[in-house]
Amino acid sequence: MSAAPIKDLSKLCVHTITTKPWSLEEAAENYEKAGVKGVSVWRQYLGGRDISAAGDRLRSHGLDIVSLVRGGFFPSVSAKNRDLAIQDNLKAVDEAAALGAPMIVLVCGADPDQSLETSRMQIQEGIEKVLPHAMANGVKLAIEPLHPMYADTRSAVNTLRQANEMAENIDSDYAGIAADVYHLWWDPDLKTELLRCGQKGNLFAFHICDWLSPTVDFLNDRGLMGEGCIDIPKIRGWAEEAGFSGYNEVEIFSDRHWAGDQKEFLDKIVESYYHC
Amino acid sequence: MSAAPIKDLSKLCVHTITTKPWSLEEAAENYEKAGVKGVSVWRQYLGGRDISAAGDRLRSHGLDIVSLVRGGFFPSVSAKNRDLAIQDNLKAVDEAAALGAPMIVLVCGADPDQSLETSRMQIQEGIEKVLPHAMANGVKLAIEPLHPMYADTRSAVNTLRQANEMAENIDSDYAGIAADVYHLWWDPDLKTELLRCGQKGNLFAFHICDWLSPTVDFLNDRGLMGEGCIDIPKIRGWAEEAGFSGYNEVEIFSDRHWAGDQKEFLDKIVESYYHC
Repeated sequence: MSAAPIKDLSKLCVHTITTKPWSLEEAAENYEKAGVKGVSVWRQYLGGRDISAAGDRLRSHGLDIVSLVRGGFFPSVSAKNRDLAIQDNLKAVDEAAALGAPMIVLVCGADPDQSLETSRMQIQEGIEKVLPHAMANGVKLAIEPLHPMYADTRSAVNTLRQANEMAENIDSDYAGIAADVYHLWWDPDLKTELLRCGQKGNLFAFHICDWLSPTVDFLNDRGLMGEGCIDIPKIRGWAEEAGFSGYNEVEIFSDRHWAGDQKEFLDKIVESYYHC
Repeated sequence: MSAAPIKDLSKLCVHTITTKPWSLEEAAENYEKAGVKGVSVWRQYLGGRDISAAGDRLRSHGLDIVSLVRGGFFPSVSAKNRDLAIQDNLKAVDEAAALGAPMIVLVCGADPDQSLETSRMQIQEGIEKVLPHAMANGVKLAIEPLHPMYADTRSAVNTLRQANEMAENIDSDYAGIAADVYHLWWDPDLKTELLRCGQKGNLFAFHICDWLSPTVDFLNDRGLMGEGCIDIPKIRGWAEEAGFSGYNEVEIFSDRHWAGDQKEFLDKIVESYYHC
């Protein structure tokens, strides 16, 4: 069963990376004009800014700050690098708190020089080390399972089942999951695991975009909703059946779309959003 | 537990596509010189040849013909195209029989304009339609689960579990599975599903190569064994624990390696084979 059609923009969130060429200020102004209601802020857009003031500015444009992107990258064969990752994640918590973002999305990481099992162990350890600081600051941590094509370096958590298992092991109201259709659409267990994720209270975020055929770049060739082969309404229906009522976050990396006029691109995002 | 080290080339098979620039005749001659014992023949290398004579020629170079590659591509929203796929697979059976290949590897296919569930249903139907002709000719059909990054157009069978389920549903001594480390290495259920595959008598073939970090092309950037992050000895150990005693088939698509001298590349294949 597909989700009910989208009738307004009240649940539309856009990631700042989606309109990569825009500064945070340009994004805020244009998102407001386009009727976008939420924003997820990538950390590089905060560079050189007073983070608290940046948060106020976003809110002054009527934008809910949905998440800070991204923490993670915990695994390494080097203990020193694992420590540095913890430090960086603690800093991300400070940034999220200053910004007024209630959640950090974790791209968990992987090290090709060790097994995926070891990387997953280090991911869970890393999250558990950061969690007290996150809780003290009221910031939630969302594990984002990444497509298996990123298992070598970006994430050893490659299915929603693995993310569910990890979140359930950690067992904290402040550790959950960001589910992205791009990473998960192919998974035959997706419905089952989405329902499990919601039932356990772990479905923190829902990201959308589309898988193009053909896809020509491993990172930056995602499509607008409807440009590709993902049945987004079906998956959104499962997320809602799982109890999710948060923002639908548009996260598109696309050299093609970034090369064009970003206002036209944003118009297309809004238009395609109604069909997802 | 990793597999025992490789001590000789008695189980080394090379796919003709691995040394793409070579004709079938050049491949046969050079494989023999390098000590390769098995060959899997891609159909395009048979173009314009008497297939039966081509088989004799390969055998005259001391090569076992391990498989014909490839059948499949069953799913389509168009009934006409599904029929054409069946016809092509029946023809592949004739070619395998003429060549003296005991097995056809199936790249099962997917159509981005329909759900993966529908594509999988059409794959199973397609295999069941081809199976009587395959059995009559003594040719086995091996479902190759493909990496989820190929789920849009190349295969709706993306995990070994899905392939196991399909092979068990079909339930024929002539339908089984080709397991390729490139497609399956990331799967947390890989050991369990390899053991299941062997126990059910369905582990027909084992393909090897490596996953490079970074990988820069979706199709043609595979690595030599040891160049990437796949723990091949571990997975080979599981395959052997599952009862597999057939060839280790080297299947590398690589623009980088194809651009160089193919004899040097073949020497590197043999060298890296000892470390897999």
